[in-house]
Amino acid sequence: MNLMDYFNIKKKIIDDYLNTLLPYSTSEPVINDAMRYSLFCGGKRIRPILSLLVCDMFGGNEDELLPFACSIEMIHTYSLIHDDLPGMDNDDFRRGNPSNHKVYGEGYAILAGDALLNKAFEIMMTTIANNPESRFIEAAKEICTASGLKGMIGGQAIDLYYENKHINSNTLDKMHEQKTGALICASLNIGSLISNASNKDFQTIYSFGRLIGKAFQITDDILDITSTTEKLGKPVGSDKEKHKSTYVSFYGLEESKLLAKKLITDAKMLISPLPNNAKLIGLADYIINREK
Amino acid sequence: MNLMDYFNIKKKIIDDYLNTLLPYSTSEPVINDAMRYSLFCGGKRIRPILSLLVCDMFGGNEDELLPFACSIEMIHTYSLIHDDLPGMDNDDFRRGNPSNHKVYGEGYAILAGDALLNKAFEIMMTTIANNPESRFIEAAKEICTASGLKGMIGGQAIDLYYENKHINSNTLDKMHEQKTGALICASLNIGSLISNASNKDFQTIYSFGRLIGKAFQITDDILDITSTTEKLGKPVGSDKEKHKSTYVSFYGLEESKLLAKKLITDAKMLISPLPNNAKLIGLADYIINREK
Repeated sequence: MNLMDYFNIKKKIIDDYLNTLLPYSTSEPVINDAMRYSLFCGGKRIRPILSLLVCDMFGGNEDELLPFACSIEMIHTYSLIHDDLPGMDNDDFRRGNPSNHKVYGEGYAILAGDALLNKAFEIMMTTIANNPESRFIEAAKEICTASGLKGMIGGQAIDLYYENKHINSNTLDKMHEQKTGALICASLNIGSLISNASNKDFQTIYSFGRLIGKAFQITDDILDITSTTEKLGKPVGSDKEKHKSTYVSFYGLEESKLLAKKLITDAKMLISPLPNNAKLIGLADYIINREK
Repeated sequence: MNLMDYFNIKKKIIDDYLNTLLPYSTSEPVINDAMRYSLFCGGKRIRPILSLLVCDMFGGNEDELLPFACSIEMIHTYSLIHDDLPGMDNDDFRRGNPSNHKVYGEGYAILAGDALLNKAFEIMMTTIANNPESRFIEAAKEICTASGLKGMIGGQAIDLYYENKHINSNTLDKMHEQKTGALICASLNIGSLISNASNKDFQTIYSFGRLIGKAFQITDDILDITSTTEKLGKPVGSDKEKHKSTYVSFYGLEESKLLAKKLITDAKMLISPLPNNAKLIGLADYIINREK
């Protein structure tokens, strides 16, 4: 099967499951719409697809994984809603559409973000209450840590702190490892945890995650310069305008491209001994070759 | 022992535990300060005190309860930070001090709120990972539900929806049951769950919680009119200014006072058959007699 077809099948499974987790409802007016607007607004679903790929690779049960993988997508979505707020990055567009607060107002955008984060935890706790196996508890803990102060939120705070300030390469790495990398690593790690991968395989996938997470962020920084507003779905050059510290502003465009390519080469090498690795290798390539 | 002395002892235990859960740290600049600023900014700790009172009453282990009770306080604190934002209620003061975004800016206030919510879940998941007993899992699930779309966030969304709109008494009740009542009920319920109370006692405490939760909100609405800015720590009359639907705007001041008193009388009656109920009865009285 063609790789993009395979990704699209997984994307459909994820979209359908998200729709079951957060169905359209008139009993919570506006807030339900606001949550669904951003959740179904053209997300590539890279994080839950990564989870499902690892699960497939290790022969795990996709149905067991979906609540956790989709919780990560909800957490990712809430972070974008809050990031776009006027008090944060003040972005009017996301994925080619007006950002959440431009449609629903700031109040609902704040609440919709909060509600998506809360919903992610509700889904995981309900799953654990029904089946308190340690692999499910570990998966939920992995996600909580990755989305918190030592992970994504911590990275966003470093980003805020270094706006208009000089940043060194170590801090730039730490910022992106937390802001983008942590949730990407968690997506892969929960695939390993739920499919009962060996410790050795878990570590391999974790190291792979750190490499592709960094390559993912470098590619985001590159696309912010080289893509078009139409393809990207938001204005290009916005990082520069906001005096954000990016890999491109630090290393320059060509050096950044080489760095991303090297990371993906290393990442693919790492997982080359694993069985059924073709699709995960394909996804690693997609990360630096995507246009949005 | 004098009741206020007892509450102060419990408050000290809670403050110390919160300090252990979120110690001062220089490794996350600004965001750590912003989180701690609101967490240690004069909160009455009513919710975790309620948890500890129920736990004492049923002979439970306070150490087992503290991570959950303090998670509720973190969730309560995040909701205040986000509520005060310019995009929500736009309040410049909270508990007599500048609100979070007035000190740290909107970006950090949004992130500090997100981080406190996330931290609450991290604490609960870590506790469960160490000891996956069903009573701990049920307590965490209770808290997730109470803070989400069917609880607090849902109530905040109803509040936002009915600004400048006519509200009926059923919806007013539903709004406050979710916005304030849900987390108060959860505080009591986790006390019952962790101390292995019988189903009958759990139900009694739950019903008690619904009554005092409503009385708590009515008293908040009354204090917004009758208190002074100095005592309340924020400008009085702000609900009216923002065209908020409150019990006082709906029923008038005198009727609201009677309603709150009646609810507390009923609540005390409900728990009168329970052993060691004196302190919980004292707290019920405090809810309508407080001045802030």
